[in-house]
Amino acid sequence: MTTPLRLGIAGLGTVGAGVLKIVQSRANLLAQRGGRPVVVTAVSARSRGKDRGVDLSGYAWEDDPVALARRDDVDVLVELMGGSDGPAKAATEAALAAGKDVVTANKAMLAIHGQTLAETAEAAGRVIRFEAAVAGGIPVVKALTEGLAGNQIARIMGVMNGTCNYILTRMERDGLPYETVFEEAQALGYLEADPTLDVGGIDAGHKLSLLTAIAFGTRVDFDAVELEGIERISIVDIRHAADMGFRIKLLGVAQMTGRGLEQRMSPCLVPAQSPLGQLEGATNMVVLEGDAVGQIVLRGAGAGEGPTASAVMSDVIDIARGYRVATFGQPAAGLESARPARATVAAPYYLRMELQDKPGALAKVAAVLGEAGVSINRMRQTRHSETTAPVLVVTHKTTRDALDQALEGFAETGVVVGAPVAIRIEDV
Amino acid sequence: MTTPLRLGIAGLGTVGAGVLKIVQSRANLLAQRGGRPVVVTAVSARSRGKDRGVDLSGYAWEDDPVALARRDDVDVLVELMGGSDGPAKAATEAALAAGKDVVTANKAMLAIHGQTLAETAEAAGRVIRFEAAVAGGIPVVKALTEGLAGNQIARIMGVMNGTCNYILTRMERDGLPYETVFEEAQALGYLEADPTLDVGGIDAGHKLSLLTAIAFGTRVDFDAVELEGIERISIVDIRHAADMGFRIKLLGVAQMTGRGLEQRMSPCLVPAQSPLGQLEGATNMVVLEGDAVGQIVLRGAGAGEGPTASAVMSDVIDIARGYRVATFGQPAAGLESARPARATVAAPYYLRMELQDKPGALAKVAAVLGEAGVSINRMRQTRHSETTAPVLVVTHKTTRDALDQALEGFAETGVVVGAPVAIRIEDV
Repeated sequence: MTTPLRLGIAGLGTVGAGVLKIVQSRANLLAQRGGRPVVVTAVSARSRGKDRGVDLSGYAWEDDPVALARRDDVDVLVELMGGSDGPAKAATEAALAAGKDVVTANKAMLAIHGQTLAETAEAAGRVIRFEAAVAGGIPVVKALTEGLAGNQIARIMGVMNGTCNYILTRMERDGLPYETVFEEAQALGYLEADPTLDVGGIDAGHKLSLLTAIAFGTRVDFDAVELEGIERISIVDIRHAADMGFRIKLLGVAQMTGRGLEQRMSPCLVPAQSPLGQLEGATNMVVLEGDAVGQIVLRGAGAGEGPTASAVMSDVIDIARGYRVATFGQPAAGLESARPARATVAAPYYLRMELQDKPGALAKVAAVLGEAGVSINRMRQTRHSETTAPVLVVTHKTTRDALDQALEGFAETGVVVGAPVAIRIEDV
Repeated sequence: MTTPLRLGIAGLGTVGAGVLKIVQSRANLLAQRGGRPVVVTAVSARSRGKDRGVDLSGYAWEDDPVALARRDDVDVLVELMGGSDGPAKAATEAALAAGKDVVTANKAMLAIHGQTLAETAEAAGRVIRFEAAVAGGIPVVKALTEGLAGNQIARIMGVMNGTCNYILTRMERDGLPYETVFEEAQALGYLEADPTLDVGGIDAGHKLSLLTAIAFGTRVDFDAVELEGIERISIVDIRHAADMGFRIKLLGVAQMTGRGLEQRMSPCLVPAQSPLGQLEGATNMVVLEGDAVGQIVLRGAGAGEGPTASAVMSDVIDIARGYRVATFGQPAAGLESARPARATVAAPYYLRMELQDKPGALAKVAAVLGEAGVSINRMRQTRHSETTAPVLVVTHKTTRDALDQALEGFAETGVVVGAPVAIRIEDV
């Protein structure tokens, strides 16, 4: 095939500019690998005049991304605008309706509308590819959908928000409180306009929900992701965790259990010596566990112009080569609606609470744990303040239900001051 | 498509049995993901009667793998016999000639005959897939050929022989000499019948040569791989390396330089805190560096029934899905013959030598280094024996040519006893 594959790019932010740079500077490489030339015919963005450091003079301009998606000289819509609805969704739908394939980096759109869009694409005989939507440059969608296609997946895990990992790493390394590092990250432009997307775990949760659908053959169900952000992680907990040989990570975990599908994106303790524990800074890591392959670990840049553009180009070249895989690895109609389960897999937990400094307080806490069926692995009372004594507990494996019962019980003892901190210790 | 994809499996060792187990136990999963049923119609192996822990009664039997490859009821030959020539090559050629695709785990065959076989496959309009030939269950062929297809690859690195990494890890952890751990590994069945394939770096070199072809668009050139095994690595060097914050790994490195294509498979010092340095036991790791994506690290089991069968099934499902990528990621005729270059990229080196314990000896060594243009980063004389003094040198970055000049110069000083040890420190 020597017919060029013609791209229409909607959204010319960092990633869009990165894609244009690759198409412009690596034409021969792309043609050799794709088996045909890859060209851009048209682009669309909010502001035409803005200097993006890349020459746009050879491309048709469309103010309206929907018009771009419908152009006769576009074979593939490359959707890089973002946002779960609005122009991104409208352009994607228009492209599919007009018989074009779609490559997107839009995790929010697919986390919310993935099932419908996948069905639309398949009805139209087109594909939606989204390597760039999960973990930036790491080819994890491909690894899971194709590389591990012969496996029943047991569990997937991932640190998939570089900003959160940067914040946690810097807190630990430099002994800084959350608020200080958060403000610094915001000043450096590391955070989304709505920082809750990052630090609240929403962005990472979107990504997890997409990998979950592929891994378990289920409909994307972002609403079922149990979300907890890093806002409440204190330097105290990071230090205690480190003392015990752990690091705290915003960790996504998805696994199918006898009681349903678990999807969690929450702070967890992981062994400091594990690959996940050793992950520092803004880097991403995804761990895939299959029945045949065992554990596969993938690590790389989770964001940024080059890495995300690399992922976009991977999808583009697959399309140039004629590879047409279903959006989530199998026909959308066959994806099952899994029953969501909430942390049914037992795990040890890290607990920290402040006790009133009076006789019998520790015994009351121990009694509550015993009554809830939570057994204690380690318990330690650390340095006193004037009136309260901090107590650390590491439990043996327990269910979240039993733990919640204990947490309720603590409140009734009258000796626990404030809300205890409870962080799951994930067996990675 | 609901026409089944019919496999003929040649070779029923560990991996062959693993493939049969997946096909038998995961029929629904494979059909959903592949878009059509995946079945085995015929098998071939040396011994028909042997108990392989898997039911063969549903499959036609062929004594001759070439006959298997030609059967009308086989769409894909799954070649798991091994060996660069002989039955494996004959069956592969017969399959291609008969219009069948080939999935193989045979690194030796492709390292030697990859170019010819790729040309044959493309002339016949068939594909050869070999995910299982490199790094076992890690989907690295896919990550490089497809996931990073938009990148100009700068460098690839890998620890791709689990047995060597097991030996080096155990030497360091338990303070044992090479010979002891080698004999133990042999007794445990970890080594190939010809152990040189493992400890001489040949097996890992085969794998590197295949990744190199994909990464740089060059013809497979195993003969150009600069090979050095781990046989000469002593516990003394492992300890000195550890003292300085390094680990010794059998590391493959390929990179295109201004003077040609470097391919090396040799012991290297890598920082103990790097992902490669932290890799313990029989696990494999591959590092891919692209101009857009930066550094991607992949880690997983490099051998064994499940992981290798997982890789085979990845290729099988791609074929079921209709994905047909060229053997080395682009048409074989377009692959270039690269000029081999020998370690032209400068690097620091670790040197250890025994000096005669007499005045001026150290000065002579320093002078030789200076004359060769090799500058010294650290130099240390350690505990004396009766008559000789061990000297460690870490150089600044130097070319291999300059280093070789220094090594020749040492011999002429008359104060260096025996052959110095020289190990490259790779910037990972």
